[in-house]
Amino acid sequence: MNKSLQPVVINQNILEMEYAVRGAIPQRAAQLEKAGFKTIPCNIGNPQALGQKPLSFYRQVLSLVVNPPDNLTKKKAGLNSGGGLAEDILSTAETILKNMPSGTGAYTASSGPRFIREAIARFIDERDRPAAVDFVPADPDRIFLTNGASEGAKYILELLISDPADGIMIPIPQYPLYSATIRKCGGTQVNYYPDEDRGWKIDRDILEEAYGSATARGITVKCIVVINPGNPTGAIADENTIREVIEFADEKGLAIVADEVYQENMYGASFRSFAAVLGKRAVPLFSLHSISKGYSGECGHRGGYLEVRNAPAVRNSILTFLDVLQKLASVSLCSNTVGQILTYLMVSPPRPGDPSYENHLREKNYILDELLRKATLIKAAFKKMAGVESFGRIGAMYLFPRLDLLPRGKTDFDYCMSLLETTGLCTVNGSGFGQKEGTSHLRIAFLPPGELLEEVLPKWIEFHNRYVGQ
Amino acid sequence: MNKSLQPVVINQNILEMEYAVRGAIPQRAAQLEKAGFKTIPCNIGNPQALGQKPLSFYRQVLSLVVNPPDNLTKKKAGLNSGGGLAEDILSTAETILKNMPSGTGAYTASSGPRFIREAIARFIDERDRPAAVDFVPADPDRIFLTNGASEGAKYILELLISDPADGIMIPIPQYPLYSATIRKCGGTQVNYYPDEDRGWKIDRDILEEAYGSATARGITVKCIVVINPGNPTGAIADENTIREVIEFADEKGLAIVADEVYQENMYGASFRSFAAVLGKRAVPLFSLHSISKGYSGECGHRGGYLEVRNAPAVRNSILTFLDVLQKLASVSLCSNTVGQILTYLMVSPPRPGDPSYENHLREKNYILDELLRKATLIKAAFKKMAGVESFGRIGAMYLFPRLDLLPRGKTDFDYCMSLLETTGLCTVNGSGFGQKEGTSHLRIAFLPPGELLEEVLPKWIEFHNRYVGQ
Repeated sequence: MNKSLQPVVINQNILEMEYAVRGAIPQRAAQLEKAGFKTIPCNIGNPQALGQKPLSFYRQVLSLVVNPPDNLTKKKAGLNSGGGLAEDILSTAETILKNMPSGTGAYTASSGPRFIREAIARFIDERDRPAAVDFVPADPDRIFLTNGASEGAKYILELLISDPADGIMIPIPQYPLYSATIRKCGGTQVNYYPDEDRGWKIDRDILEEAYGSATARGITVKCIVVINPGNPTGAIADENTIREVIEFADEKGLAIVADEVYQENMYGASFRSFAAVLGKRAVPLFSLHSISKGYSGECGHRGGYLEVRNAPAVRNSILTFLDVLQKLASVSLCSNTVGQILTYLMVSPPRPGDPSYENHLREKNYILDELLRKATLIKAAFKKMAGVESFGRIGAMYLFPRLDLLPRGKTDFDYCMSLLETTGLCTVNGSGFGQKEGTSHLRIAFLPPGELLEEVLPKWIEFHNRYVGQ
Repeated sequence: MNKSLQPVVINQNILEMEYAVRGAIPQRAAQLEKAGFKTIPCNIGNPQALGQKPLSFYRQVLSLVVNPPDNLTKKKAGLNSGGGLAEDILSTAETILKNMPSGTGAYTASSGPRFIREAIARFIDERDRPAAVDFVPADPDRIFLTNGASEGAKYILELLISDPADGIMIPIPQYPLYSATIRKCGGTQVNYYPDEDRGWKIDRDILEEAYGSATARGITVKCIVVINPGNPTGAIADENTIREVIEFADEKGLAIVADEVYQENMYGASFRSFAAVLGKRAVPLFSLHSISKGYSGECGHRGGYLEVRNAPAVRNSILTFLDVLQKLASVSLCSNTVGQILTYLMVSPPRPGDPSYENHLREKNYILDELLRKATLIKAAFKKMAGVESFGRIGAMYLFPRLDLLPRGKTDFDYCMSLLETTGLCTVNGSGFGQKEGTSHLRIAFLPPGELLEEVLPKWIEFHNRYVGQ
């Protein structure tokens, strides 16, 4: 055999890494689509793929920024040839271009343009100040713009995992970015198990148990990941729960990764950030946010940020943690500028009194109301399925019902595959996120248009009850 | 001390990784800028930061695609309210939107939308068919869209490095993405030394020497990286050189990474791709291209692609190499859609007869002519600097002159830092790219506007001759 074509040994961690959100079931869906069979992609939180419209404000500004008319300023003054664009659209585009004089085509600073990091800091402060006990303002120099939130999560795990015995605590179930990245970096995944029957609640005992059994195995736990609101569970952590996690991390000397990308998907509940509850407590905190979720749904543009508080010192180095993070980010040069600009627009939306305000608010409310309505529709359908229960209130973009009556020998993977083949509904099996042994689940993103749901839910109910033999 | 604030042990590979293009000298430049001192950022190939205008065709299409007018089709028919946009702008936007029915806000397939991968395959075929002996067409299923070319290079190195003794051959000097990524992945960098005095030529002896001394040290060499045209050298590999590299890789059983992001920066020379010369030879080849360089210069949008030929089998796995690559890409969900669309536009520019053709060609030629003119200006200035010589013809976006007369005890880092402090010119020292022991260099991107160059070059000449004491 030609030497060049001999099998190659590749990185074992990557070979074994799993990422079910784009795994075997979605891959089968893609085959079905190719064969002309219509599928409904509920495997992933990708709202615009299911008909959600982008916010007009975002796209009108963006369209001007990527191809600025020669007479942007004149247009603003006259408003006669602005193609019907409101004054705040034009002035926002102007602000962006003033702060990015080379436009969108130049590399920016690796952490992103400073004016955007300043706007993010203002957004965080405005969000957190009313609820914080010991308010500490955000620092633009500790904010990094990233290609989606995923990139920020990867940076932190890559830095913290320095040895196979380094442990990262993650909730089970979790978003598989975390398990995949821990595996890729060669670290150890330390599972903790939020209590499903109490709406996926976390408490001190749960954390201690996971930590204790890991340290007993010789694992050095370095960090705890909390996803709030939860993915895939939708569970919302209240202030006391957050405080408990912070106290736990403080005592054990852990950093916290707070994945808060669903912070706008609250449906009436109120969001508390880890930063607000942290206050002056000196626990390292890495918070993530994204333009992909909330009511923006701008997944394809890959925008997000990482905010750092209380960056730890680095053992045996004159470099600070932020120096090293900066260096790591700089190898990719910078995140994409359009994602950066959409992040800016997300954190500086039109204000009351601005010409675009009413319309923006209407679009926002419509999207969030629809999401809640669709989640409620699906939850109601669960009631008609034998042995299906979904715990906790509605949050994020997902429901994660437990399937209690699967036939002997059938897994939730089998169930989801059959559900896809029978109804076209593409979901992800619970084992793709991790789950307590002996339980079965699936995750469904509550994103399809209402009419489509009303069509497919009865089919699902019928499929389900036949599948479980009821 | 609070346990949370104890110094943390972080990943040693990342701690030690170096990336000079955004290292100490550019960081000092940023400080100077903050203090009100004007600097000229020639440390990086970032054309639009130095006044290069984006191509009108790209941006006009993009502006329509991110915020499609309701009446795009009507506009096309009537052309009366299209804001003066040419028919091919409108129809290109229409084609993109037809193929991306959810617009730019949805995640795409992890490897990118199929119609873009098909357009890339056509572009590669059109480029290579005339010159190829044994022409093999490109396969859209073996093309991955990426956030810039950097991401594609990282994917391949991450997959190939599975052990600290795994070696990757890279040219010295090289673009530090490679050394940084090899270090980050914990592999071994195996240097080969193109011959500066022969215009940075590579030959079989040079490759054998590097390979032989690495294997003698117990290194398993898995891959050879070639940057063509060269970064930082600008050197252009001719067909014979490429054939020699391919034969070498074939005999030794190595994969090839062909970094061809400067393929349009030829200034009269003709480009041969590794794929064209490879023909039917079964050597694994990973080719990279990008929207950041050439005459596009769309760095900030982070677009590019990776094309795979002859993917090797994977030892001890039922997965193919492409499966694993797909899985690795899927953890980041997808590259950003605007970078994808600009990649599409780069590979499908206006054709003769299209309404935008003449203007697009004029803009392209202007950019490339200016680049050559500026490179020539700088090369002429070297002649007035004692002991400065730049070898080989002009390629890519850089000159990499050798500094033969640095005062005893001074390094090229010291020189570049003083050059920055004295003239505002921000370059990168040769040691940031690697260089033969005992030699000193710097890399300058030939991007500043002509007037600025004419102003700063005399200052540089004066600085230089004083610095070296002539």
